[in-house]
Amino acid sequence: MISLDDIRQARERIGSWIHRTPIFSSATFSRMAGNEVYLKAENLQKSGAFKFRGAMNFMLSMSDDERKRGVVTGSSGNHGQALACAAKLLGVKAVVVVPLDASPAKVAAIEGYGAKVERCGHSSTERIAKAMEIAENLGMTFVPPFDHPWIMAGQGTAGLEIAEDMQDVDAVLVPCGGCGLISGVATALKESLKGVKVYGVEPETSNSTYLSFKAGRIVELHDIHTIADGLRTASPGSITFPVVQRYVDDILLVSEEEIRNAMVLLLERAKLLVEPSGAVPAAALLYGKVPLKGKRVVALLSGGNVDLAALCKWIEEVRTGN
Amino acid sequence: MISLDDIRQARERIGSWIHRTPIFSSATFSRMAGNEVYLKAENLQKSGAFKFRGAMNFMLSMSDDERKRGVVTGSSGNHGQALACAAKLLGVKAVVVVPLDASPAKVAAIEGYGAKVERCGHSSTERIAKAMEIAENLGMTFVPPFDHPWIMAGQGTAGLEIAEDMQDVDAVLVPCGGCGLISGVATALKESLKGVKVYGVEPETSNSTYLSFKAGRIVELHDIHTIADGLRTASPGSITFPVVQRYVDDILLVSEEEIRNAMVLLLERAKLLVEPSGAVPAAALLYGKVPLKGKRVVALLSGGNVDLAALCKWIEEVRTGN
Repeated sequence: MISLDDIRQARERIGSWIHRTPIFSSATFSRMAGNEVYLKAENLQKSGAFKFRGAMNFMLSMSDDERKRGVVTGSSGNHGQALACAAKLLGVKAVVVVPLDASPAKVAAIEGYGAKVERCGHSSTERIAKAMEIAENLGMTFVPPFDHPWIMAGQGTAGLEIAEDMQDVDAVLVPCGGCGLISGVATALKESLKGVKVYGVEPETSNSTYLSFKAGRIVELHDIHTIADGLRTASPGSITFPVVQRYVDDILLVSEEEIRNAMVLLLERAKLLVEPSGAVPAAALLYGKVPLKGKRVVALLSGGNVDLAALCKWIEEVRTGN
Repeated sequence: MISLDDIRQARERIGSWIHRTPIFSSATFSRMAGNEVYLKAENLQKSGAFKFRGAMNFMLSMSDDERKRGVVTGSSGNHGQALACAAKLLGVKAVVVVPLDASPAKVAAIEGYGAKVERCGHSSTERIAKAMEIAENLGMTFVPPFDHPWIMAGQGTAGLEIAEDMQDVDAVLVPCGGCGLISGVATALKESLKGVKVYGVEPETSNSTYLSFKAGRIVELHDIHTIADGLRTASPGSITFPVVQRYVDDILLVSEEEIRNAMVLLLERAKLLVEPSGAVPAAALLYGKVPLKGKRVVALLSGGNVDLAALCKWIEEVRTGN
């Protein structure tokens, strides 16, 4: 398991490279949620998501020799963009394996950071296998998306910032996919503040962490459908899950409609573009899923990488009540 | 003319009521603009725009007796929302006169803050006359949108924050409508930092400040059409304009297409919802209107109150290249 010290060391490493993202109070969300609501705007992080923290910590933890040979990963989304962005800043070669049907906008963003894009298959298993093959053949380092102590410690720095900026926080809500973010954030919070609650939030239709948490062992899902594309993970990781079991108080579920409505409300009222995966904590607050009233609650808005055409479709659905 | 001291006193008054808005660096905008670009996110201010600063300073400068009798204004946009929001927080009665064709979203926002909405005519002249009549009949105080020292000093607090947070700033770009914002911000900057440049930015199709600045006297426009609805002012104010003449280095112009593209890029890359009026400084940077290279430049994003249906129309236009 990682410790608060690992996260503090990660911050020493990445502190000058990342944005320390702001925490906003929101009168609108507070009124609607019946709690004092604060938004940790990690959508304003470099590369548009918290993933930059972990990618940067991983690359700065590698040896000089490893960095010279470059990094590779398989990703259809934020992890690939974050790795490409961090690699560019550090002058490291990067390859990102994306699915054959990757959105042109995401491919353009990865290439915009100067990384090489390889296309392979449709599933995450195919991408990861291809990335590992490239790593093996070219002597590059494979950077996993969540299940690694360096990644978890990097993501945990977001929790350290919350603990420092809001020492009287009662609860923090964090999206769950592979649980890289929540495992780091929960460690930072539980090991530095007394009495703070940490809740994971998952889509009802992609609830592997919820099922695993209730079963007490990792449960895998297949055939996952949710608009929260960053949370379409088959299961929590073997390294991240024990941390979730130890430090997370509960896993809350939200529907597709609740996610979409929360995302549009964040845009309209908080003026922040948040992707569906990043809006799940706000959805849990708005739709009464959080077992708290009148408390100081932080919703961690994990990212803001949204295709604008999809955004407009969701806005139209909300406007017309469909 | 207002002074730096007036602005400092305004900050004493409103400091605990306003958000101190963050300044973000942007790698994307820096690369595209050839300058080191910083974004002062005043779209994250309470009520969604800088107008809250001036409205709050005005109301806190009134006597207790005046506050008891209430405030009234004529506005189709951010000033009305800001006044309603400030009045609610201070427990003061407020009436906002809006045009007969006011957007339901804006009326709902004003009423959401608990203010009374009166509908009258279509022009700003009709609204203001009606608001003054209400003030007279009910003994309420009329709160002007820009041409008043209390309003100017309140808006100037945004400039004070820039001067404090970025003492090595080279230039600041500010939207121009009635010039309440730029007159306050320019005073704060020029009276506290040496060598800083202040540029106003206006739509080509609503360029009364540009024309006035070049002519050396106030020029009035009629029949104004621009998507930047907050900048559809007939002319700069008689109190604000002399400050613009004294402290502003130049007025830059941007086209409707440039405004729209900048707004969509702010959403897509900076994850910030900015209204067209607030996007004009970013447009000036992106389209080479700023006579600087390699400098530290702040774009003041003045507000984020956008109708989401209009936003989607603009996104679609940018995507399809129309």
